[in-house]
Amino acid sequence: MKVLVGDKIVEREEAFVDIEDRGYQFGDGVYEVVRMYNGKFFTAEEHIDRLYASAAKIDLVIPYSKEVLYKSLLKLAEENGISTGNIYLQVTRGVQQPRNHIIPDEFPLEGVLTAAAREVPRNENQFVVGGTAITEEDVRWLRCDIKSISLLGNILAKNKAHQKGALEAILHRGDMVTECSASNVSIIKDGKLITHAADNLILNGITRQVILKVAEEGKIPVVERDFTVDELLTADEVFISSTTLEVTPITKINETIIGDGKRGPVTALLHRLFEEEIVAACGPLVKENIK
Amino acid sequence: MKVLVGDKIVEREEAFVDIEDRGYQFGDGVYEVVRMYNGKFFTAEEHIDRLYASAAKIDLVIPYSKEVLYKSLLKLAEENGISTGNIYLQVTRGVQQPRNHIIPDEFPLEGVLTAAAREVPRNENQFVVGGTAITEEDVRWLRCDIKSISLLGNILAKNKAHQKGALEAILHRGDMVTECSASNVSIIKDGKLITHAADNLILNGITRQVILKVAEEGKIPVVERDFTVDELLTADEVFISSTTLEVTPITKINETIIGDGKRGPVTALLHRLFEEEIVAACGPLVKENIK
Repeated sequence: MKVLVGDKIVEREEAFVDIEDRGYQFGDGVYEVVRMYNGKFFTAEEHIDRLYASAAKIDLVIPYSKEVLYKSLLKLAEENGISTGNIYLQVTRGVQQPRNHIIPDEFPLEGVLTAAAREVPRNENQFVVGGTAITEEDVRWLRCDIKSISLLGNILAKNKAHQKGALEAILHRGDMVTECSASNVSIIKDGKLITHAADNLILNGITRQVILKVAEEGKIPVVERDFTVDELLTADEVFISSTTLEVTPITKINETIIGDGKRGPVTALLHRLFEEEIVAACGPLVKENIK
Repeated sequence: MKVLVGDKIVEREEAFVDIEDRGYQFGDGVYEVVRMYNGKFFTAEEHIDRLYASAAKIDLVIPYSKEVLYKSLLKLAEENGISTGNIYLQVTRGVQQPRNHIIPDEFPLEGVLTAAAREVPRNENQFVVGGTAITEEDVRWLRCDIKSISLLGNILAKNKAHQKGALEAILHRGDMVTECSASNVSIIKDGKLITHAADNLILNGITRQVILKVAEEGKIPVVERDFTVDELLTADEVFISSTTLEVTPITKINETIIGDGKRGPVTALLHRLFEEEIVAACGPLVKENIK
């Protein structure tokens, strides 16, 4: 397996970073996960744009153009022979000796890029059968619009869900649902799709954006607004979305069965429309488990 | 210069970590900074206890006993010939391939320890003259009691202060002051020391704890409670505290001069009592700039 470190593709075993990389000492960096189907990127430009947008929000300079980064990631995927897989990439602010909260004025830090590409099959069964979730207080910071690597709040929530046998933790600030530990959440009520607005409290998922676009095309009304935990639990359908989860139904939250406990028709339609986007960009999807 | 990686002391140039260390990809780790005077640790046990307490709060297992860690840090300081300096140490949850929010059940991750020791003189002039601060909305997560390396919120605040020529950013949630980007803040009003209670919104500084202890001994009444930005700006004295800053007066916040713009008597007394603690533990302090 090969990985990308800076502008070099190296063997995984030879890939190391400095102990005083600000990513390691401060969580000072941004990241993305880009999906590939049939050896072709899906919405890679959107992910790369968001990476640069996240970086700009924290004044982190990425030392490559978007074009160079795109080509590097594609080359990495190709060298690893990825067909259906994920390309994880992160850029940290760079190495600073000695450690200091303050970013030096005197000399520019060189951002450190690392990336890995791995084959990750589509979880087709889960797209249909769905998964369960827990609800959890959202204790994360107030700049969740930045896709940063300071993720401790996210991983603690995710692991709490995992320990309870659930797929995801649906987060709420007080009574208002925001998003999940590593995905967005939407509800369907009376045929309408309701999801939190893309403000500072959620990451505006690329998958979320594609879903909102295809919902419009599919004549499904979309309302971007806060909704309560009670609305979540009494929704007709609930689904979560992310680069890897695509459109995954949530059939049970805590002890509450959602709808009839099966994937609902609007969720199914949205996933079909989402798949059409994949097919248009990357070619036919070989399906085995979808019925 | 030598650093500690795991249980080995190695040359700085040979110190690297894995790109899939969870500290690097998730900010999934905890840290401490231990101060040394005259080649002797100051409150090292307290810092090590807090490291283990932070780790326990996130279910991170530190793969060494406290005694072994203490000895490793002391050896590191000695090999670097530190007299007055800082030992920075962090422990991350370890390396996980492939990256996954979920901590595996199947196999235990091995925590990764790294540490560096550097000579850092006391800023004696600043202890007397003080520094300035800005106020900044506290957007960090709600578990600031954990000394984690997911520090992006802290560094953004610190750098905003730095860009405005200030020493620190004093953070507030709405109207209530919490702490600073890398220190605690206390005010003196009518002879009383007022500081935020040690709950989930602040890190309970070891220096803060020593100050509260010596305040009691010095017959200075201590009140641990929320206080407002207005109380901050109209305080008789304001000081910040941390391992390196000790007791540092804040003489101006935004455009507001605090008191008469000079270190106040209670702050001066507290610093003198704090220095007595250092002397008791580490021996005489050689002073050059204090008048």
